[in-house]
Amino acid sequence: MRRLSFAIATLLAATATVPLAIAKGPDGPSAPVDQIVDQGTRHGEVMRIAQYLTDVIGARLTNSPGMRQAEDWTQAKFREWGLTNVHKEGFEFGRGWSARNASVKMVAPRPLTLIAAPLAWTPGTNGPITGQVVLAPMADEAALDQYKGKLKGKIVLITEPADIADATSPAFRRYGDADLDKADTFELPGGPSAATRPQRGPARQIFLAKRDAFLKAEGAIAYATMSSRNGKLIHGQNSQFRVGATPPLPGFEIAAEDYRRLARLAKMGATPSLELSSDVTYDDSDTKAYNVIADIPGTDAKAGYVMAGAHMDSWAMGDGAADNAAGVSMVMEAARIIKALNIKTKRAIRFVLWSGEEQGLLGSMAYIENHIATRTIDPTLTDPARYAAWGKSFPIKPGPDHARLAAYFNLDNGSGRIRGIYTQGNTAVVPIFRDWLAPFSSFGATKVATALTDSTDHVFFDVVGIPAFQFIQDPLDYASTVHHTDVDTFDHLKPEDMRQGAIILAAFLINAANTSDPLPRVPLATQPKTLSEFYPAPGAK
Amino acid sequence: MRRLSFAIATLLAATATVPLAIAKGPDGPSAPVDQIVDQGTRHGEVMRIAQYLTDVIGARLTNSPGMRQAEDWTQAKFREWGLTNVHKEGFEFGRGWSARNASVKMVAPRPLTLIAAPLAWTPGTNGPITGQVVLAPMADEAALDQYKGKLKGKIVLITEPADIADATSPAFRRYGDADLDKADTFELPGGPSAATRPQRGPARQIFLAKRDAFLKAEGAIAYATMSSRNGKLIHGQNSQFRVGATPPLPGFEIAAEDYRRLARLAKMGATPSLELSSDVTYDDSDTKAYNVIADIPGTDAKAGYVMAGAHMDSWAMGDGAADNAAGVSMVMEAARIIKALNIKTKRAIRFVLWSGEEQGLLGSMAYIENHIATRTIDPTLTDPARYAAWGKSFPIKPGPDHARLAAYFNLDNGSGRIRGIYTQGNTAVVPIFRDWLAPFSSFGATKVATALTDSTDHVFFDVVGIPAFQFIQDPLDYASTVHHTDVDTFDHLKPEDMRQGAIILAAFLINAANTSDPLPRVPLATQPKTLSEFYPAPGAK
Repeated sequence: MRRLSFAIATLLAATATVPLAIAKGPDGPSAPVDQIVDQGTRHGEVMRIAQYLTDVIGARLTNSPGMRQAEDWTQAKFREWGLTNVHKEGFEFGRGWSARNASVKMVAPRPLTLIAAPLAWTPGTNGPITGQVVLAPMADEAALDQYKGKLKGKIVLITEPADIADATSPAFRRYGDADLDKADTFELPGGPSAATRPQRGPARQIFLAKRDAFLKAEGAIAYATMSSRNGKLIHGQNSQFRVGATPPLPGFEIAAEDYRRLARLAKMGATPSLELSSDVTYDDSDTKAYNVIADIPGTDAKAGYVMAGAHMDSWAMGDGAADNAAGVSMVMEAARIIKALNIKTKRAIRFVLWSGEEQGLLGSMAYIENHIATRTIDPTLTDPARYAAWGKSFPIKPGPDHARLAAYFNLDNGSGRIRGIYTQGNTAVVPIFRDWLAPFSSFGATKVATALTDSTDHVFFDVVGIPAFQFIQDPLDYASTVHHTDVDTFDHLKPEDMRQGAIILAAFLINAANTSDPLPRVPLATQPKTLSEFYPAPGAK
Repeated sequence: MRRLSFAIATLLAATATVPLAIAKGPDGPSAPVDQIVDQGTRHGEVMRIAQYLTDVIGARLTNSPGMRQAEDWTQAKFREWGLTNVHKEGFEFGRGWSARNASVKMVAPRPLTLIAAPLAWTPGTNGPITGQVVLAPMADEAALDQYKGKLKGKIVLITEPADIADATSPAFRRYGDADLDKADTFELPGGPSAATRPQRGPARQIFLAKRDAFLKAEGAIAYATMSSRNGKLIHGQNSQFRVGATPPLPGFEIAAEDYRRLARLAKMGATPSLELSSDVTYDDSDTKAYNVIADIPGTDAKAGYVMAGAHMDSWAMGDGAADNAAGVSMVMEAARIIKALNIKTKRAIRFVLWSGEEQGLLGSMAYIENHIATRTIDPTLTDPARYAAWGKSFPIKPGPDHARLAAYFNLDNGSGRIRGIYTQGNTAVVPIFRDWLAPFSSFGATKVATALTDSTDHVFFDVVGIPAFQFIQDPLDYASTVHHTDVDTFDHLKPEDMRQGAIILAAFLINAANTSDPLPRVPLATQPKTLSEFYPAPGAK
């Protein structure tokens, strides 16, 4: 026990700093924290950035016209603020896709306009098409056979219409102490941790291709899914984005209430018919997606860099506000604040706006493969098989920036205020981050939680051994309402919260860029997080 | 005090009955309550009725094609079940109106389909019309002048876009004991009671006409309001339904998130333009609206009748499920149950499905004027001035059915289960209704609450002295989500709750039709419920 305590104390001595020491500001001596607060509030621009990304540009599906516009606009902003090395870094992705003038109308047994959206990357209808609806839920391959010979000329409802769930919890909430304490739970390696849970297997993608081929072969003219949310919210999510993998039939997501009505009418023999229309544009002129990168150089070129990131791509419905113009705006505002205050740090600070996050963290994965680490992965695999293989392939081979990237901070939990930070099982950073949060306890940011959190761009940094973190944010109406839906709009963002987030992110970046030693790392993984001791040892009976 | 107690005891002796005494059922002796439960559950049809009204017929705006279809279908059902005197009773209303293929698209600064609906009774666009948006909130007449000369060729956003409210309460809930206890609060006459609150003054309607004339004179091409609910829910409510009062310009309600985006873009100078389209049909072939009436005769022709009712008209969005196919279905199911069980009662039981409720309780008001009581009202007044004058005009002159109608029971609180009944300040019925609810305490129906409740069709019966009651129902997601919106659909109805409601209504009707004496009445009002003692007495200084 003493040895362990001694080791921890030694480590702390090497990395802890007095957070954001007193410095001379433009109006005399003032602490950088207070300068940052002033710049992020009285002179703040985080909401202006967010408004441009959402109201003016709108949805930013990877490789869509909106995303291209955002790539250009954000680079121009970084340059305007004086950041250096502003550029975009491409990676192979797939087709650009956009849709307009889409509509789904019930034409029998009575006329009714339904709330619906084309599924991303599905083809257009080439003018209005009309057909009877058939309810044919097909959750897996085994379900297909029963519909043989029954789909010709039909519009196929492929989701089982589950009953409505009672909304007995508030749609909007902030975390209480109990929620924050729950996040501070160390997951012992070997347990069924968040980071090792299967996320999306290749089996699903293979099934989708089989399902689509079946629908086509049976002569169906289109298919529709039911929104997973009630209250007429729609998503339009679908990930068949590779060139050559485009689904053969137009697909639509229909609002839950409208879908259930169709299903009930079909079941009662009232034989509803729909008129579908969607005008879809594919763009294969550039199949690369791009991460946008911008730097603030450090004072010591050999000290490496720290990095903040947020994904800029969104799904096609709504304006991608909470997911994730919020994170992008806070990252950009942190850059603007640091630059505007002319704060110098030992290490460089890099800002990166990811693409392809919604299709499987593809932008951050590409960055890692180019700069941080490679793994031995079957080169014929494409996403999502590649994605699924990523956490399981060993050894990890450190790349040129593996030692140079001292820390990565991610923002992708909506616009709620920062309540703390997840350390991803890294215990040595706990006291350091507590120091860094100390000035912000009255801002509501107090919790350093050792738990793992997943499903966004810090994950692959973490699994290759980079100290990579995601902030804890108040959930607001993110998970209940806006996440991936057509109400992910600017008015659901919280200005006060986002100002707070940008301020804290700026402070963390400055701190991380100034520690005498880089932040402590966990040992580089040599096997998947599931421990081998649970399996028979070699040679065991 | 003793005198009062004695009087109450006497009254009770005269009206109380052993509720639903033992009777011979088809399989031997069984209590009517259990027969009703059996008929309303194992043999229940309440959800089948509701499904036809919602999924098949859909929205039932007063005098629209849907409402006409519902008038016919419900009469046919009553006849099929063997009710007598099935007919519809007309009253002067206004125009029929229906819309289809309505759409609102933003065409600049970027293309986007918005969620929107035409406002009821506004004219169509006669093909797509396009114009720039101008934000010009006009809540009252004083606001108009500032927009002079600024609206030509514009689409005018007339609602001030209020910020989003955080949804910190659950959208779905059931009542707890505290809620029910709160409802049981006697309101002393003279207080600012629910029944005497101004509901909708004529001033509003006069302003709307002035606003519309102003918009027309200024050369605006259309106007739009913002939905009062977030989450892209829309209503399309508007009450300019009289022949001759049709607004001159097309009007649309735009979903809150979409409207706020337009307002923000307009404020930042991005000058959004919209393409509006709505195909509207007016029908003046019959300007009467109709209440549907059906009877089960009593055994004593001189004993009068009791009545249950619910309004069948809805607004134009959604399928009018919770408001109020739910109430209609429970009223019809109660009729079916009583008829199917061949239960004989002393008094007749009348079932009535109101029209024009959403425009100001017009159907029930017309019934009252024809059958129950008249008041001296300026004959030149039309709704809503007539409506506003109704509670304040004296004397009340009892009509032919004033003494004959022993009780009226209304259902218009969605599909939530019955938790009790409001007595509208009638204290003498409290012990009687407690007896009647006793068999249903394990069904969740326990509370006899003296409080007044308003805004539906029992109100005008109550104010002219008829014992008229509305049941207390669990709120579910009625007020938060479905009320008047496009998600007022069948899937938001609760089958178990509606079966319970139909069963309890049937039992109450049988009880009320069998009391030895009619239910006790409160004294006939001779002045508005606000007491004259608060004003200077005649001759006072």
